[in-house]
Amino acid sequence: MQFHLNGFEPGDPDISDPAERARASGASGPVPEEVEVLIVGCGPAGLNLAAQLSQFPDIKTCIVEQKSARLLLGQADGIACRTMEMFHAHGFSERVLKEACWINETTFWKPDERQSEHIVRSGRVQDVEDGLSEFPHVVLNQARVHDFFLDVMRRSATKLEPHYARRVLDVRIDPDAGLADHAVTVTLERLDPAHAGEIETVKARYVVGCDGARSTVRKSIGRELHGDSANHAWGVMDVLAVTDFPDIRFKSLIQSAKDGSIIVIPREGGYLVRLYVELARLDSGERVASRNITSDDLIAKARRILKPYTLEVKEIPWWSVYEIGQRLCEKFDDVPDAEASTRLPRVFIAGDACHTHSPKAGQGMNVSMQDTFNLGWKLAAVLRGRCAPRLLHTYSAERHAVAKELIDFDREWAAILASQARGEGEGADPAATQSYFVRHGHYTAGTATHYDQSIISSEPSHQHLAPGFVIGTRFHSAPVIRLADAKPFHLGHVVKSDGRFRIFAFAGREDRSASDSAIAALCNFLSGSPESPLGKYTPADADIDQVIDVRAVFQQGHREFAIEAMPALLLPRKGRYGLYDYEKVFCPDPRDGQNIFAMRGIDRDAGCMVIVRPDQYVADVLPLDGYARLAAFFDGFMLKAEDDGVSVAEMPTTVPTAG
Amino acid sequence: MQFHLNGFEPGDPDISDPAERARASGASGPVPEEVEVLIVGCGPAGLNLAAQLSQFPDIKTCIVEQKSARLLLGQADGIACRTMEMFHAHGFSERVLKEACWINETTFWKPDERQSEHIVRSGRVQDVEDGLSEFPHVVLNQARVHDFFLDVMRRSATKLEPHYARRVLDVRIDPDAGLADHAVTVTLERLDPAHAGEIETVKARYVVGCDGARSTVRKSIGRELHGDSANHAWGVMDVLAVTDFPDIRFKSLIQSAKDGSIIVIPREGGYLVRLYVELARLDSGERVASRNITSDDLIAKARRILKPYTLEVKEIPWWSVYEIGQRLCEKFDDVPDAEASTRLPRVFIAGDACHTHSPKAGQGMNVSMQDTFNLGWKLAAVLRGRCAPRLLHTYSAERHAVAKELIDFDREWAAILASQARGEGEGADPAATQSYFVRHGHYTAGTATHYDQSIISSEPSHQHLAPGFVIGTRFHSAPVIRLADAKPFHLGHVVKSDGRFRIFAFAGREDRSASDSAIAALCNFLSGSPESPLGKYTPADADIDQVIDVRAVFQQGHREFAIEAMPALLLPRKGRYGLYDYEKVFCPDPRDGQNIFAMRGIDRDAGCMVIVRPDQYVADVLPLDGYARLAAFFDGFMLKAEDDGVSVAEMPTTVPTAG
Repeated sequence: MQFHLNGFEPGDPDISDPAERARASGASGPVPEEVEVLIVGCGPAGLNLAAQLSQFPDIKTCIVEQKSARLLLGQADGIACRTMEMFHAHGFSERVLKEACWINETTFWKPDERQSEHIVRSGRVQDVEDGLSEFPHVVLNQARVHDFFLDVMRRSATKLEPHYARRVLDVRIDPDAGLADHAVTVTLERLDPAHAGEIETVKARYVVGCDGARSTVRKSIGRELHGDSANHAWGVMDVLAVTDFPDIRFKSLIQSAKDGSIIVIPREGGYLVRLYVELARLDSGERVASRNITSDDLIAKARRILKPYTLEVKEIPWWSVYEIGQRLCEKFDDVPDAEASTRLPRVFIAGDACHTHSPKAGQGMNVSMQDTFNLGWKLAAVLRGRCAPRLLHTYSAERHAVAKELIDFDREWAAILASQARGEGEGADPAATQSYFVRHGHYTAGTATHYDQSIISSEPSHQHLAPGFVIGTRFHSAPVIRLADAKPFHLGHVVKSDGRFRIFAFAGREDRSASDSAIAALCNFLSGSPESPLGKYTPADADIDQVIDVRAVFQQGHREFAIEAMPALLLPRKGRYGLYDYEKVFCPDPRDGQNIFAMRGIDRDAGCMVIVRPDQYVADVLPLDGYARLAAFFDGFMLKAEDDGVSVAEMPTTVPTAG
Repeated sequence: MQFHLNGFEPGDPDISDPAERARASGASGPVPEEVEVLIVGCGPAGLNLAAQLSQFPDIKTCIVEQKSARLLLGQADGIACRTMEMFHAHGFSERVLKEACWINETTFWKPDERQSEHIVRSGRVQDVEDGLSEFPHVVLNQARVHDFFLDVMRRSATKLEPHYARRVLDVRIDPDAGLADHAVTVTLERLDPAHAGEIETVKARYVVGCDGARSTVRKSIGRELHGDSANHAWGVMDVLAVTDFPDIRFKSLIQSAKDGSIIVIPREGGYLVRLYVELARLDSGERVASRNITSDDLIAKARRILKPYTLEVKEIPWWSVYEIGQRLCEKFDDVPDAEASTRLPRVFIAGDACHTHSPKAGQGMNVSMQDTFNLGWKLAAVLRGRCAPRLLHTYSAERHAVAKELIDFDREWAAILASQARGEGEGADPAATQSYFVRHGHYTAGTATHYDQSIISSEPSHQHLAPGFVIGTRFHSAPVIRLADAKPFHLGHVVKSDGRFRIFAFAGREDRSASDSAIAALCNFLSGSPESPLGKYTPADADIDQVIDVRAVFQQGHREFAIEAMPALLLPRKGRYGLYDYEKVFCPDPRDGQNIFAMRGIDRDAGCMVIVRPDQYVADVLPLDGYARLAAFFDGFMLKAEDDGVSVAEMPTTVPTAG
């Protein structure tokens, strides 16, 4: 798709009339007085959480935003492979694939040794290594990512819309409240002219602060960002420009000899380009606004860095200067470490509210969205009475470690790029810089996240049964063929953002689900045993896959055996009519090099089970007959289903922390 | 995507609230008094034409439909690969890929030799051979296909909406009218209760009858369907059912010994299934309605055919019985053969209005949509003053031949299936039936269409330069890498439904566009020669690719040479800012077996040019220096651009027919 040729227009480029491209967004009227979850902030973290919670009509969610309307342009744009996998779970990856700019290669530029005021290309690499993900690395205006989340919300059972123009004044937690109480009281000030200054009060069971680096929610729970004493100033501008710089449609990392660095990000529509221009290190406490930097300053600096290439800027749809430091909050909820065994979290922070870093690694939106993808299913499971509230401790534990890594990586990567320009250290050798970039490709793609052991991430006792499905990392999808209709399919794409756990049963070599086979025995256990998590945690009147969804993958080709021979659990009858669900069984893709058993190193003789969390992470790998361990895993955090509504989860007398 | 589990709901399954799934459609108010094109009928043929014409704000189009609102369910469902390619040109293939059911394999069932009242599987084949198209064969409710077209129209510059509840009473052509006159007068009766019986009159330059087998438009131009004297009766039902028939998620052709045949079509959402049940041959003139067949009759018959398998129908969202004969209209416009050299067409018919056949070949919607995909760009080009009106003669010539083939195929295929059941002839051997199916796979995929030589389909003098791009057939896409950003791409996907011609220049082995190369010489000719079609037919103030879009494919890998060395025509400056368009140059995909030069047999030494029509058909293959032939091709039907508005095309004194 090509668009923005004659000037940037916000909204859906597929709609011809600019006036209709940006659909109206926002709820009218006051915020509800009482909700289960109040989300503060309509950035990627907040909207991702809202999109997840909007799927559950039994959870009352509200999302508020200080700005007066939806975002139309600017801010972040990088979308890592891992984020695309998450977008697929939300159901809009194909829209992003179509509209976004794909980052296929990254190029590196450094000062020319013969003429140091000029830059030369020092290398180019494939941006994402083959097989790392079934999705590419892409870039797209953050505003469009918001639009896709807003669409998910609007189309959901709850038709959730944000309440704009609300500033948080105060967040108070009632320390004496019971677990089922709406213990957090949030005071909001309306900013829309018709109601300016009016005060609203919302009582919530949980509050999630996705309100950015100067988060009011964070301050309300007494937390701070720690790290750099000084900030770096950056300029960023989206431009329509004419240039003879040949890599303007590649992501390019450019280090000049004397004028600092630029990151070139080609953008959606074929013409737009983003330039990140590194400005200066500020003094401690200094704000970049005090320097009165203009867009002309940014252009001038970009021109100096790009020499001998020219840059003629025709339109600047958006630009900004901002200061950023590598900073991290010590914990992402309101429970002090010392009280973690006796107190449950009520308030969470996510995204920039708890970690800030440079744009160099392209991780901005991505890590923030993964924060709330981690939190969303947990909040929903606790509110719906499916999981014990102590599950909520795992949010801060898991995501704090990720943020720490991000900040360490960002610092290291910035140092290497800077040393390349200065001709010192590892970066002095452009090949070494490039090699570092390639080595850390998993990291920047978002696929290196590895959660520590906890109640929802098991000790890797049986990891050898499937070394390609690493416990604590995201389920790495691979191609399969669906038995019932021979459809080529990506196995990971069954994991939707619907709050369900999945068990993937990979059959041993000769196993065709005959009555004496390991697969049949597992299905018998799951369907019939009083110890089975399906029996214990599925509401009596619900479809058998409503809480835990079981799928099987056999080793034979899909023409070699028959769907009708499957155990009932793999050909379940569902819904009011008792229709067969034909989508539970898969076979290997016969194409060269595409066999899932080989690609993920699954033990061909023994087979294995892989438990996958609702956020697509591998919780455990275990033998097909590992019934006790399987049962114990779910017993560690799930609650018996009395009914399918929101039930009041019991408060355990002591609450163990995660990890 | 799984949906319809608890009952069929029309509309977009991605929207949770059933009441919001089917978006309102239709224009309010009267029809315009004067339009360029009046389309009669909101089926796939009519909507496809409307979607194309809606892209041109300088063409006033109106589409009317007798029904009171948009279709919500029922009718056709098969979508051939070729149709998916066309959907890509319209910009909605990814939505269909996501929502539709993919037909991956087809299975064949026949009477069991040991027990002839039972059926047994006689074979299964991959439904579409590898490499035939980059798109799969899918099935989706016709109503959803309508929705996608309605979306294209709504999002277009003209925001075109159908006028529902209009019955055509009369169509009159003024024989004395000039070419620019609105010479066709159509009288409509309103059927909506608030205006019932009101008469509207529309004057149009062109009228297209997409109004089905009993077309009023066809009758108004004195044409008839010819063919079978008697009809076959068919029953069709969409069901939610429980069955132990194992191939219920495959397309299955089932011939019973005594009860006739069923075609099983698995449908979108994972649960819905369509059954086509062959009923009886009717007497000449007999209507199936007279037999009072009920849905219970259809179920009973299906059960007899499916024995020993059971069928328990839980819900029938839609069913119908209808009669169909293999019939064809002798010509698809209003100009009698004898007058073709002196008269230009004003009225056209498309789809069921000019050809009818059985559902056995799954071609229903597909051929109808391809009819108007052929007509749409021609009408637009003539109305916009770009092409001579004699171009319109090629519509009937090209599409009549296709319809004739369809009817011959349908007759032969039905006979083979019937003889399989009877145990006679070619069909007696199930392997022969299956082999016939495979041999004709190109046909049913819609990719075998081969237009005869005409002013827009050249004599194949240079076909040997690229035997894989057959003149007269659709441009068979293949993978490439875009030079400017290394994006993996399907070359055919540059051909959008925008009315433009494309020239693909495939470079010779050593050609890197240096100044003495064949590519550079071609670009010089195209940019600078007074004979160049770009120079002659592109309006002076338009972007250089607005009428004819030139792309180049080189043989070197994309890292082996540089975008900045390209001739200006391949790195053109466009739009109000003169921005570079970086999307004109491609290189081969380095993956094994994916090199476009090898896949399409392009002459590696000489290279070649391929001219592609706006409807994606190959118009000519010629040498890179075939300037005279290239110029002559476009001179054969194009008109000099005086401006970019609708200009009055001159009437040639004699009008040669196509072919």
